Amino acid sequence: MTHLPDPGPQPGVHDLGYARLDTDRLERTGDAEVVYGAGKTPAQVVELLRTLHATHPDRAVLATRLTPEAQQVVGAELPEAVVDPVGRTAMLGTPPPARGTVAVVAAGTSDAPVAAEAATTLQVFGAGVDLITDVGVAGLHRLLGVRERLAVADCLIVVAGMEGALPSVVGGLVGVPLVAVPTSVGYGASFGGLAALLAMLNSCAPGVTVVNIDNGFGAAVFAARVARRAAPAEVKSP
Amino acid sequence: MTHLPDPGPQPGVHDLGYARLDTDRLERTGDAEVVYGAGKTPAQVVELLRTLHATHPDRAVLATRLTPEAQQVVGAELPEAVVDPVGRTAMLGTPPPARGTVAVVAAGTSDAPVAAEAATTLQVFGAGVDLITDVGVAGLHRLLGVRERLAVADCLIVVAGMEGALPSVVGGLVGVPLVAVPTSVGYGASFGGLAALLAMLNSCAPGVTVVNIDNGFGAAVFAARVARRAAPAEVKSP
Amino acid sequence: MTHLPDPGPQPGVHDLGYARLDTDRLERTGDAEVVYGAGKTPAQVVELLRTLHATHPDRAVLATRLTPEAQQVVGAELPEAVVDPVGRTAMLGTPPPARGTVAVVAAGTSDAPVAAEAATTLQVFGAGVDLITDVGVAGLHRLLGVRERLAVADCLIVVAGMEGALPSVVGGLVGVPLVAVPTSVGYGASFGGLAALLAMLNSCAPGVTVVNIDNGFGAAVFAARVARRAAPAEVKSP
Amino acid sequence: MTHLPDPGPQPGVHDLGYARLDTDRLERTGDAEVVYGAGKTPAQVVELLRTLHATHPDRAVLATRLTPEAQQVVGAELPEAVVDPVGRTAMLGTPPPARGTVAVVAAGTSDAPVAAEAATTLQVFGAGVDLITDVGVAGLHRLLGVRERLAVADCLIVVAGMEGALPSVVGGLVGVPLVAVPTSVGYGASFGGLAALLAMLNSCAPGVTVVNIDNGFGAAVFAARVARRAAPAEVKSP
Amino acid sequence: MTHLPDPGPQPGVHDLGYARLDTDRLERTGDAEVVYGAGKTPAQVVELLRTLHATHPDRAVLATRLTPEAQQVVGAELPEAVVDPVGRTAMLGTPPPARGTVAVVAAGTSDAPVAAEAATTLQVFGAGVDLITDVGVAGLHRLLGVRERLAVADCLIVVAGMEGALPSVVGGLVGVPLVAVPTSVGYGASFGGLAALLAMLNSCAPGVTVVNIDNGFGAAVFAARVARRAAPAEVKSP
Amino acid sequence: MTHLPDPGPQPGVHDLGYARLDTDRLERTGDAEVVYGAGKTPAQVVELLRTLHATHPDRAVLATRLTPEAQQVVGAELPEAVVDPVGRTAMLGTPPPARGTVAVVAAGTSDAPVAAEAATTLQVFGAGVDLITDVGVAGLHRLLGVRERLAVADCLIVVAGMEGALPSVVGGLVGVPLVAVPTSVGYGASFGGLAALLAMLNSCAPGVTVVNIDNGFGAAVFAARVARRAAPAEVKSP
Amino acid sequence: MTHLPDPGPQPGVHDLGYARLDTDRLERTGDAEVVYGAGKTPAQVVELLRTLHATHPDRAVLATRLTPEAQQVVGAELPEAVVDPVGRTAMLGTPPPARGTVAVVAAGTSDAPVAAEAATTLQVFGAGVDLITDVGVAGLHRLLGVRERLAVADCLIVVAGMEGALPSVVGGLVGVPLVAVPTSVGYGASFGGLAALLAMLNSCAPGVTVVNIDNGFGAAVFAARVARRAAPAEVKSP
Amino acid sequence: MTHLPDPGPQPGVHDLGYARLDTDRLERTGDAEVVYGAGKTPAQVVELLRTLHATHPDRAVLATRLTPEAQQVVGAELPEAVVDPVGRTAMLGTPPPARGTVAVVAAGTSDAPVAAEAATTLQVFGAGVDLITDVGVAGLHRLLGVRERLAVADCLIVVAGMEGALPSVVGGLVGVPLVAVPTSVGYGASFGGLAALLAMLNSCAPGVTVVNIDNGFGAAVFAARVARRAAPAEVKSP
Repeated sequence: MTHLPDPGPQPGVHDLGYARLDTDRLERTGDAEVVYGAGKTPAQVVELLRTLHATHPDRAVLATRLTPEAQQVVGAELPEAVVDPVGRTAMLGTPPPARGTVAVVAAGTSDAPVAAEAATTLQVFGAGVDLITDVGVAGLHRLLGVRERLAVADCLIVVAGMEGALPSVVGGLVGVPLVAVPTSVGYGASFGGLAALLAMLNSCAPGVTVVNIDNGFGAAVFAARVARRAAPAEVKSP
Repeated sequence: MTHLPDPGPQPGVHDLGYARLDTDRLERTGDAEVVYGAGKTPAQVVELLRTLHATHPDRAVLATRLTPEAQQVVGAELPEAVVDPVGRTAMLGTPPPARGTVAVVAAGTSDAPVAAEAATTLQVFGAGVDLITDVGVAGLHRLLGVRERLAVADCLIVVAGMEGALPSVVGGLVGVPLVAVPTSVGYGASFGGLAALLAMLNSCAPGVTVVNIDNGFGAAVFAARVARRAAPAEVKSP
Repeated sequence: MTHLPDPGPQPGVHDLGYARLDTDRLERTGDAEVVYGAGKTPAQVVELLRTLHATHPDRAVLATRLTPEAQQVVGAELPEAVVDPVGRTAMLGTPPPARGTVAVVAAGTSDAPVAAEAATTLQVFGAGVDLITDVGVAGLHRLLGVRERLAVADCLIVVAGMEGALPSVVGGLVGVPLVAVPTSVGYGASFGGLAALLAMLNSCAPGVTVVNIDNGFGAAVFAARVARRAAPAEVKSP
Repeated sequence: MTHLPDPGPQPGVHDLGYARLDTDRLERTGDAEVVYGAGKTPAQVVELLRTLHATHPDRAVLATRLTPEAQQVVGAELPEAVVDPVGRTAMLGTPPPARGTVAVVAAGTSDAPVAAEAATTLQVFGAGVDLITDVGVAGLHRLLGVRERLAVADCLIVVAGMEGALPSVVGGLVGVPLVAVPTSVGYGASFGGLAALLAMLNSCAPGVTVVNIDNGFGAAVFAARVARRAAPAEVKSP
Repeated sequence: MTHLPDPGPQPGVHDLGYARLDTDRLERTGDAEVVYGAGKTPAQVVELLRTLHATHPDRAVLATRLTPEAQQVVGAELPEAVVDPVGRTAMLGTPPPARGTVAVVAAGTSDAPVAAEAATTLQVFGAGVDLITDVGVAGLHRLLGVRERLAVADCLIVVAGMEGALPSVVGGLVGVPLVAVPTSVGYGASFGGLAALLAMLNSCAPGVTVVNIDNGFGAAVFAARVARRAAPAEVKSP
Repeated sequence: MTHLPDPGPQPGVHDLGYARLDTDRLERTGDAEVVYGAGKTPAQVVELLRTLHATHPDRAVLATRLTPEAQQVVGAELPEAVVDPVGRTAMLGTPPPARGTVAVVAAGTSDAPVAAEAATTLQVFGAGVDLITDVGVAGLHRLLGVRERLAVADCLIVVAGMEGALPSVVGGLVGVPLVAVPTSVGYGASFGGLAALLAMLNSCAPGVTVVNIDNGFGAAVFAARVARRAAPAEVKSP
Repeated sequence: MTHLPDPGPQPGVHDLGYARLDTDRLERTGDAEVVYGAGKTPAQVVELLRTLHATHPDRAVLATRLTPEAQQVVGAELPEAVVDPVGRTAMLGTPPPARGTVAVVAAGTSDAPVAAEAATTLQVFGAGVDLITDVGVAGLHRLLGVRERLAVADCLIVVAGMEGALPSVVGGLVGVPLVAVPTSVGYGASFGGLAALLAMLNSCAPGVTVVNIDNGFGAAVFAARVARRAAPAEVKSP
Repeated sequence: MTHLPDPGPQPGVHDLGYARLDTDRLERTGDAEVVYGAGKTPAQVVELLRTLHATHPDRAVLATRLTPEAQQVVGAELPEAVVDPVGRTAMLGTPPPARGTVAVVAAGTSDAPVAAEAATTLQVFGAGVDLITDVGVAGLHRLLGVRERLAVADCLIVVAGMEGALPSVVGGLVGVPLVAVPTSVGYGASFGGLAALLAMLNSCAPGVTVVNIDNGFGAAVFAARVARRAAPAEVKSP
């Protein structure tokens, strides 16, 4: 097409044609860019992981929302990558030493993919993980049995679909900062996670914040930042 | 207006001009008609209560959703009526002996009007009431402290606004039939009770049913029918 | 992943790795856990059914929302299971003696899967079933012809899609406790069952409660509890 | 303001400054323009009624949605006008002889204003009216008692709020063309009439059409056109 | 299953196991039942068409919403049936003589399936059809060129997707009763036809009524009843 | 409160305590800031107008969405201001010479306030105005009569409520850039202007853009920029 | 079918059976009709492109929303056509000389298809294009680096999904007319682009207008008209 | 009423009749209960503040959402309370020493009440506050001028109405944990803050979490917990 000429490369940008990596983001925000796999071909995911890894060789880099096909290609092309089929993620490089601990709490087995995405993201972003699953509110004994683990965490990620009640109950048990993740688990009047999202936004427990439906990644980025600040001491992140 | 002539009175119908009472309903369903006060003048409420009472002199009759003005006029014109300013109801006549018990459980103080409407309706429809308030999920110790009262009831009415989580937690504690009532308590993304309604419809606790937002009356009619069946024994309803 | 160590097994929980069964639920609520088949592999469904059956050998256990493939595998691996392709359920073990009767009323032929799921669930949860289909409100003679069967039931489950009018009409005919189930049958402005759901929540017949769209299972759990209480006499549930 | 000059009067338009009457509409569509009172001052309503009456002296003209204040001013300034406080309408001039009959059927007493607006509009637009009120679906005997009146009408207007079930039931009883009018009667999940609107759009009875919430006027314009066509002759309505 | 025994056949009902035909409907409403093909197997469609045809041998019977596969099977098994791949319908038997004329007006080529479904339904229900396509409001000359055909019809069916403006424009041109059919044609903020549906419900042209999205069938049943009443004369419907 | 100290004034910002004026905006975008009157006291409106006028003495400044009380105070305190009670605006200072012409087209009389707000804004932002009202699509002759005025404009603002069909019809008549403004005029299923908004977003006429409901101001800012570019010639904007 | 006879060809319409081309549109609006490929077969797309090209041999004609299959068939059958797989478009014939420049600004790589559709449409409609991609608001340095290119354009098209914030930021940087295009990029609470659409409609930057979700075509038609007016001089469009 | 007897006081609960204070919350979560003023009488607010203050004499207690009348009564009855008419809050008692700093960033003047509620809550919950207002995205220079203040905070609260774009821009500038608060500022398609809420949930900047519309209180409780953990030591904020 006869478009006007592109004025050339910009600093802080790595242009791959189909994407321009924001290589400056690490310096600006302390966290590097991540490969969001939805809508990308397996070959693009591989190239983006390689490029990010080459830019930041001393940090783990992350790809999320990988299709089964992309997981297979990444596993074959980048054998050193750690691929998690549950969380649909791939991690390339060594994660930084963990600072602080985030407890990832999931209500039901169907919420496992979102919890796993959060857990891997926490590793890449330098926080420790305590994964607690299947503690839905319809069986309170399971939740009350882990109250201590919740209380000693530096931040909580609470994952739930359907009625999304778990964050309110957890938020009433402990005073730890709590990020709620609604999931699209449910049917009918769950409207793809809307019911859980609205419930979490209206939580009667003060101090609950919310991210987008199924957004385990975003919750983990936030929680890792909180946990790292809470445990700033001995460990220096690369 | 020159409308076609009305073909005359129908059996089972009492025509007051502005309303036609379904006097046959008692025989058909076992429960008499009720005065829904919204949109009616105080004078109309008084006349309707009187007419219903005259039709069924041996049963208590009920008016709901009364404005403060209507409550005052009813109290003045029908001194034998019991007016409840919290639940906005008026009861005229002696309630039947209570059969079975319904526990009415409310999450917060703002849910009190809906819980009170349910409690009075249960009396009029012949069920006993155990009223338990302020047991929101953000303070589980209050709820766990009343677990026994919940377990021995014949039916539960669980009233909650905001995130509407209480029915899921109660439904996981006991196996009693549970009717959930979302309330319009909340703001912003509660959308007038929609958040609580959706949460309750998606409850992960099996055996939870739901009524319209703020519909304490409807929940009580249903629960009274359940409780009366569960305790059919010695008492004969009039 | 380098997650914190899991603190070991909890009482009342059976951990299968991909799911933790709440084996304590029977004692707590009187009803055992059920296998919700959506999103599970056929092999997982089989294992979960076997485990639940082993835990409660004297009770029927239930799996719902089975894909055609899962139905086939369950039928092959567990030949003693009763598989219902209409309701997409499998039942393993002998159902308890029926206490009380629930009439399951469906408006149209397209509502059959939801009605069948409710009917099988009622069996597993120990209630008798009277199944009445194709009695939509556009042909009142079919409905009026079964009025007596409705009146003698201990609880009603009324299933309808499209405009969801059937519960209002049934609720005006008899005074039996009524649980309405909206279905996703319809197109265009039915919005996946939302139209029927809203209609049922706004029913002008008092004493109507509602469950989630297509939730025949939940309606049946509730109705079985009501029916068992209404007919507590001779039969002792295990 | 320094706007460009207006190019002068147009044929078929009567300019009052704050409104331009479409005086050509009668010739084009067979029906004259109507004064929609919402948002207009009482003085404007009076002037518009006078102007329309002067343009069509041999036909009744109509104003709808009049505030109580506007009704009072119209009654005082135009003593020959017929003001209906229930339907909030004013009619000025002699209505044409009625051709055909439209049965206006309303579910509850709260639907009366919409039904009354429809009834007066039918008069002005030249159709006979048979008004049938308080025949909600929760008391079928009332509805079945008027089946004959429904069957002999040339068109039906069925008005209902809450769950909006009445059109489906009526549409299954008779084969007369049926226009359904949802009303904003209800609360909570009725969402201002949305529940009734959706229900009517999804009616399982074929041959039901729908107008906007509370739009008794629009339903009547349509129904009058149908009724006049069905009874084109010399006109016999009472 | 051990369900209660079915109390036997009902009058006016033909039970096929998977469906119960309302054979009484013709007498009650003047129109016979129709086979709604969505969700039915080709074999079921064929059997239902045969059964309806046997019940009413002197009337055409109709099946709608047929999948391509069902269309093929019907064409092979019932060679005398008229199958329309555009409207996805099949008609079996001779349609009654046409009484009156309904103009079916469609805005764009994508609206053709809905218009064709309406046209065939009109034939089966005994009305004449004048089909006018591709007269969208963005090219008014096409619409103004057919104004006379619109004015002489007994009823109009106006089909449009996207912004749904066509009914308002047509409704301002002529005074014929007008049924608007929103279609799901569009993308993005059309929300599956919701935009067109809302537009039509809010039409500024008085006398517009609306049916469900894509419901060409329902509009035609209604319009045929109007047209037959407007032209009752010489033809006797069977 | 003991908040951190504010770091002092910023360039390009005029701090009034309750508001900080972006005095740099004129240089950045060519248009000065405007006083949005909603939620401001009359005294604040007066002070903001005075301050803006002092900053840009050679340009007219504008206040919008003024309450009747604010209009009165502005008229008294700033007698040189031009207050328009219909559009709820006040203009202080001499508007720039008009470059180009924008035709403001409104469907009904109820849309007048939005059209007037747009007209005054156009003046302040330096464009000529041709105001054309009451040309709704239900009376096409009124619209076709002004086709020439539409064709010679440099930009069109088309204002409509209810079904919002006018932009589609106008967009099919002429090829002038067209900004559509939905208004909140309507009731019931107009949902506060949502119906018109969705219709306009789905216009079948290419080249239609849309602004927020009732946003005559925003449409005018945009249109003035288009018109000034189309007529850049003799006039130099200050 | 026995439909009434079609009254023959209309002037300004080219009838292909499955579509009627509005060949008069060029004269009326200055822009020719375009082939909207959604729902059309590859063969229909080819025939429509050929017919439009034959009608306007001296202008480029355009097809949009082509499936991969249609792109392949068009490429094979019309080798002179320019097919863009990213924007899913095909252009046949020589585009007119470009008048003015439109900057197309896209937030992320996933927005590329919509931006490409806009860019090709601008060419066909006779405007120059400056394509600027991957300048999302989370990396402001990329956006600030292109501020000058934005300021010199005659019109801006700003494409963004997810939170749709880019138009507000761009609209605060420069005073160029700005058309915002929300895209369906996102998940969960983006609701298919609704979040971005609402954000853009509520932009705090004055002078932002909006088109339908993913409607790069419509934005380009509008912007080309603006750009051509802003640069009317030397170039004569064919 | 003849309700069952209340089983007496519970530990950790202070019963006032119309409310039961959760006096145990401080021990459980580290933060005391707060008086939510909406729906409470001024006298109730005063009594609740006094009771909470008596329970925790060494900590400041807080009341939010006070009506003007309640603010006046609190000011008169509790002269030692600090009443903030902008944020509608009252604080009684000495706030704890501030640990860490939270920057509260507001987009426009209309967002001031929500920002003020957050600021006061932070004080009561023991965090320092840096309040930055009027830095909307349409004037980036104002925002870029405070980048350093953002970068040194321990947590950010970003308050915005209308299109809610500010959190995305701030989240791209710094890597500090960010809580976004949508406000109900806006009109038309802002739908009471829904537009801003959805935008924030879909932010392209990773690490953004969201609370309910206008919920400055909840954001502050969360942020104070984060800030206190980040600065656990001896640090005194100004």
